[in-house]
Amino acid sequence: MQIPANNPALQSWVPYATDTEFPIQNLPFGIFETQTSSKRVGVRIGDFVLDLFQISNFGYFSDLCFSTQDFEQPFLNPMMRHGKLAIRELRNRISALLSKDNNSFQIRKNEHQALIPITEIQMSLPVQIGDYTDFYSSKEHATNVGVMFRDPANALLPNWLWIPVGYHGRASSVIASEHPVVRPKGQIKPDDNAAPIFAPSRQVDFELEMGFVTFDGKALGESISTSEAEEFIFGLCLFNDWSARDIQKWEYVPLGPFLAKNFASSMSCWIVTLDALQPFACATPTQDPEVLSYLKFEGNKSYDIQLEVAIEAPACKEQVVSRSNFKYMYWNMSQQLAHHTVNGCNVRCGDLMGSGTISGPTPDSYGSMLELAWKGTKPIQMPDGSERRFIQDYDTVIMRGHCENNGIKIGFGEVKSQLLPAN
Amino acid sequence: MQIPANNPALQSWVPYATDTEFPIQNLPFGIFETQTSSKRVGVRIGDFVLDLFQISNFGYFSDLCFSTQDFEQPFLNPMMRHGKLAIRELRNRISALLSKDNNSFQIRKNEHQALIPITEIQMSLPVQIGDYTDFYSSKEHATNVGVMFRDPANALLPNWLWIPVGYHGRASSVIASEHPVVRPKGQIKPDDNAAPIFAPSRQVDFELEMGFVTFDGKALGESISTSEAEEFIFGLCLFNDWSARDIQKWEYVPLGPFLAKNFASSMSCWIVTLDALQPFACATPTQDPEVLSYLKFEGNKSYDIQLEVAIEAPACKEQVVSRSNFKYMYWNMSQQLAHHTVNGCNVRCGDLMGSGTISGPTPDSYGSMLELAWKGTKPIQMPDGSERRFIQDYDTVIMRGHCENNGIKIGFGEVKSQLLPAN
Repeated sequence: MQIPANNPALQSWVPYATDTEFPIQNLPFGIFETQTSSKRVGVRIGDFVLDLFQISNFGYFSDLCFSTQDFEQPFLNPMMRHGKLAIRELRNRISALLSKDNNSFQIRKNEHQALIPITEIQMSLPVQIGDYTDFYSSKEHATNVGVMFRDPANALLPNWLWIPVGYHGRASSVIASEHPVVRPKGQIKPDDNAAPIFAPSRQVDFELEMGFVTFDGKALGESISTSEAEEFIFGLCLFNDWSARDIQKWEYVPLGPFLAKNFASSMSCWIVTLDALQPFACATPTQDPEVLSYLKFEGNKSYDIQLEVAIEAPACKEQVVSRSNFKYMYWNMSQQLAHHTVNGCNVRCGDLMGSGTISGPTPDSYGSMLELAWKGTKPIQMPDGSERRFIQDYDTVIMRGHCENNGIKIGFGEVKSQLLPAN
Repeated sequence: MQIPANNPALQSWVPYATDTEFPIQNLPFGIFETQTSSKRVGVRIGDFVLDLFQISNFGYFSDLCFSTQDFEQPFLNPMMRHGKLAIRELRNRISALLSKDNNSFQIRKNEHQALIPITEIQMSLPVQIGDYTDFYSSKEHATNVGVMFRDPANALLPNWLWIPVGYHGRASSVIASEHPVVRPKGQIKPDDNAAPIFAPSRQVDFELEMGFVTFDGKALGESISTSEAEEFIFGLCLFNDWSARDIQKWEYVPLGPFLAKNFASSMSCWIVTLDALQPFACATPTQDPEVLSYLKFEGNKSYDIQLEVAIEAPACKEQVVSRSNFKYMYWNMSQQLAHHTVNGCNVRCGDLMGSGTISGPTPDSYGSMLELAWKGTKPIQMPDGSERRFIQDYDTVIMRGHCENNGIKIGFGEVKSQLLPAN
């Protein structure tokens, strides 16, 4: 697929560092506001945000299918409703406007007016999420959990290699980066108690995930095939699926995690389009046993996205605790979406799908404290000499991600959230 | 609590049968349209719908906090955003307008214009559902499932008597009564196969539930106590949580049901306010062991609502297969909502909470085919001589519910959906 905005030779008249995560080849979408403006759609380039409402007002999109109102909104959904091809055309247009080749003085003058330094803006949750689904698609993560809590000899459950296992999460408590998280209280069953107690969780954990956001899918009763799936995916973000392990342990049999997860899930604010990620598409790990027909796919459907997690404590500089990669996932997004809809379940514009914890093959690439500190037996050392088995009050968890090849870096920024003490 | 609209002595100038489910003491809210009008808010009385948009246009609500636009909407949410006290005032006002004591000719003339026979309207999904949560709060149901699939001697899982167990469901596939359901396809693992197969479900089942719809709750990080809970509940509906047992069996460990449930859930179209149900409040079954503090409650928080399920097949008259009651639920709605938010999880206007399958103490009061036909060992006899272990293609499942005392019947109408063959 040739997408003009992805041309690695493109350069922008907007100044940015050569190693920026937001070169002209990225152009992610988000929702921002300033001291004086309402919430609107922006596109990031270098350390600036291009105000699409302004640009649309100037008439640069007048031959596209969008209305100016699509860009003065608290969420990306109205813009996204126009679908994949329209968004591709829009991104190509923005690329052309920001390209060095575009020498019209008037255009630059207007665009300068619409170009706002990121220091002057405030970001918020980019999409109004209809439904949030979380998958469990890292074989290494599922194996680690199985080894720790079940049988090391049979770590994976019988269905795991057949099904991209997923479950429904809570949309209301998905929050934007920088929004703090309150330590949840709940029922915990200490091993030596006959009865559960009610207390703040002592095992608050992060889960390193990526999320993808969908366009409107098909009608209820119809399915999306693996070959169609990417046409229904708008883009990706970083995602921290906060978890309370002690609450989870007591509540999750037989219907799955509930209060252990729904107190908060944090997403990064820039949605990097799947189009921008095409140059980083790569092979999915070999799947053995052979998957059922509806899960078969062709081509490169995984993405090489380098990820890291850091913990920052008050008066202690940040410590990177994990380096992983999205390409490790056993099940790819096309398979997840095909599975999700194979029973006729409908997806809607703005739905969010979490990948599940992204753990790599080595202990320093695991995607949760549960695994990194191996159930508390191998605490993580912090620069100030303290240890972490789980996340402490006032710790900030920061996740970052980017792709890189041919000297071009396509980044996601970060998702960052501080844990506050229980109320 | 004295709510004027609940006065059993009230009579309406609108003609209706003495045994109607929709007397002036009910006044449930829903969304309707006609051949000539857009979707708007209506209140049911007898076999008529009162068009609130018209009534508001006439100025009868001008001293209340609602705008006329709140009533010309595809969902009840904008009206509901005004909160419990405003809705109570609105229902009291509508009661006054429809009361026989109201003798103003002009009022009656206007109201007659706004009174539309139900034969001339089409109902649709009443609320835009933010998140849908399903509980598992019938002890009889949980016990039956435990006896069938686990250990009869330890049928209830260890957490069941401590936690109002719940899990997140899919909001996008919640549909209104009369909307057909397509038999889902999915992975099924026959006992004698090493590998799963992909096929239409052979075990499509209903689950007799009631749903409650919430007002906006508190901010993320805060909790709703059992004593506050009812102030955040707008009303109730009948709810059929369609389930595919064979898909469920293979997929649900460890993260809970997913494709076995999210192909469709059907709700009835009239939301009966919790206010209208107050005269039918009753005691919750004794809870032993004593629940944790945050789950304790005072007063009558359960509701005596008689329920029935019927199956209708083509060329075969309907067969009532279950008669149950909402009052059997071990955990009440106030406990469910307190539990759901005790970790700080936020609920929003229009969220839907399913009760879980409502099974009573006797085999004819079970709330699913799985239990009624006891895993297929006791098939249900139909009037045409055929048998049912699960739901067959073209069967229609009908659920009905009402309360009754002092000669007053408060009903929910029905939720009715036909199962169509797999695509």
